[in-house]
Amino acid sequence: MTSVARFDRAKRPTYVPSLELVPEVLAGSRLAIARMISRAEGNYAEATAALAEIYKHTGKAHIIGITGVPGAGKSTLVASLIKALTLEGHKVGVVAIDPSSPFSGGAILGDRVRMNDAAEANQAFVRSMATRGHLGGLAPSTLQAVDVLDAAGYSPIIIETVGVGQDEVEIVTAAHTVVVLSAPGLGDDIQAIKAGILEIADIHVVSKADKPEAAATVAAIKGMLALGGGTTHSTWGSPVLAVSSVSGEHMESLQATLRNHWKHLQDSGEFAARERNNCRTRIFNMARHLFQQQFDAGANDLEQHLQAVVRRESDPRTAANVLLGWNQER
Amino acid sequence: MTSVARFDRAKRPTYVPSLELVPEVLAGSRLAIARMISRAEGNYAEATAALAEIYKHTGKAHIIGITGVPGAGKSTLVASLIKALTLEGHKVGVVAIDPSSPFSGGAILGDRVRMNDAAEANQAFVRSMATRGHLGGLAPSTLQAVDVLDAAGYSPIIIETVGVGQDEVEIVTAAHTVVVLSAPGLGDDIQAIKAGILEIADIHVVSKADKPEAAATVAAIKGMLALGGGTTHSTWGSPVLAVSSVSGEHMESLQATLRNHWKHLQDSGEFAARERNNCRTRIFNMARHLFQQQFDAGANDLEQHLQAVVRRESDPRTAANVLLGWNQER
Repeated sequence: MTSVARFDRAKRPTYVPSLELVPEVLAGSRLAIARMISRAEGNYAEATAALAEIYKHTGKAHIIGITGVPGAGKSTLVASLIKALTLEGHKVGVVAIDPSSPFSGGAILGDRVRMNDAAEANQAFVRSMATRGHLGGLAPSTLQAVDVLDAAGYSPIIIETVGVGQDEVEIVTAAHTVVVLSAPGLGDDIQAIKAGILEIADIHVVSKADKPEAAATVAAIKGMLALGGGTTHSTWGSPVLAVSSVSGEHMESLQATLRNHWKHLQDSGEFAARERNNCRTRIFNMARHLFQQQFDAGANDLEQHLQAVVRRESDPRTAANVLLGWNQER
Repeated sequence: MTSVARFDRAKRPTYVPSLELVPEVLAGSRLAIARMISRAEGNYAEATAALAEIYKHTGKAHIIGITGVPGAGKSTLVASLIKALTLEGHKVGVVAIDPSSPFSGGAILGDRVRMNDAAEANQAFVRSMATRGHLGGLAPSTLQAVDVLDAAGYSPIIIETVGVGQDEVEIVTAAHTVVVLSAPGLGDDIQAIKAGILEIADIHVVSKADKPEAAATVAAIKGMLALGGGTTHSTWGSPVLAVSSVSGEHMESLQATLRNHWKHLQDSGEFAARERNNCRTRIFNMARHLFQQQFDAGANDLEQHLQAVVRRESDPRTAANVLLGWNQER
């Protein structure tokens, strides 16, 4: 039986076991979705089996990665997309990665993205996540949050990453469609778009199309793409669009391009190749995460092994194997 | 009984089990040392127990890391140090890390560092090692090569790293004394010495002291150190020396400074702190290495797990745990 948390004065909300939340997540309960994502983010051992079960209900959503340098206008674009896509009847999920934030929970982004009406607020689920220390790659909890929304019937799901560090390049291993956002004023400063970013973009978007410099930026990006810097993993031509999130100008064009890319992935067979590649990366990143977790869990034992290694009574390999719970033979 | 490899026409050299090589390494046999380092570099499973045993005989050598940008004159400085230190009666070990070289074995560096006479050649052991793909940190085999030389009675042991990427910063976790080499002509271009490098240097050396720009470079580095960029882990003052490896000028001063730093480490109690820190890093890097090795060993199984994850019959965490030989509960 599924119990529901009650904010009763007399007692704190009941902790609902994660496996019991799964049917509620699949039925689209916003409370269950929020809780499940929090448990993924908090790396609750209790939620492991539930998240494994939820994963089996994924694979339906169109996952869109949006990246770009700070100030490019990602949040505004995401807000515009939420509005436009919910108006079309989509249930839109957003997972925003904020490497700098020590907070989790959706409050910050919830404020930032102003929900324009009740329908929109009800049709969209927006979650901001802090990325916790992990050895490169997107944090497993980020991808698990996407899983939860996918299993709950949200599509498209937008992953918004700050265009700093590894996250922006690794978004390609989590998304079906990567949108790279640039602000006008790029002009001659071709350096401003890094080579790695050019390669991962399925769609280039230049924000603030109302500004006079926007056309020059579009031309500069097209020029770089013509020089061979474009996407190498596709027969898709990486279109360059200028949009104004403020005036809503050309937002329909971006929506149509997103639909076209989704169709292109299916028709070309590229979807299967991406899924395969994304799953492979995800298994490896999860393995790395488990390794770090296992090593950290041995922290209490580390001191004793460390002293033995310092005294030359043990050696680093033996200590490492013991700490990882492996036998001597590795 | 220890068998010795013979280069007999009729048969290939006998493979001497690594554990049998250990007493020969401890006795200083150059052949045994060379073989043991090759087995560490080749990551032979058979050599694991022998390298663990060898580790227990380490901790005697003064380990000196020498780093600096390409062209700073590292090889020339190392050659001068070998000459000077062997003349003083030291058995000098050198492990040169060459991230770009696909070769291992000492041939390249053996040519590069011209041994000036038979005594010098006999008193020094020089080994160049390619660093193979690993997840950051100094390759375990590099540190195992240092172990072999340490156990065999070599001291000091010089680790020469190309001043590119992570190796140059991580040398601080492998060495007792870090020497950062700069070429004259640095002048105003303070950027040329990166902040991370300033912090790790126990001794700054400016090469080519015969050049007129050398004094300005010494002054520039001293200026940066005065601005607070100097070593933070020590009461040691990070001296700045100009040397000419060609004329031999001030080499005595460098040797004296190396001895002083060694004495400072012992007297200040910093030696114990460094050893502890170095061992901790080494255990973690070894654990990471073992993780990668374990994951790679599961490559044959990966395909089957990958397909199950793509089909949503399994999930990334379950697949990762199975590939790492861990149970479901992690």
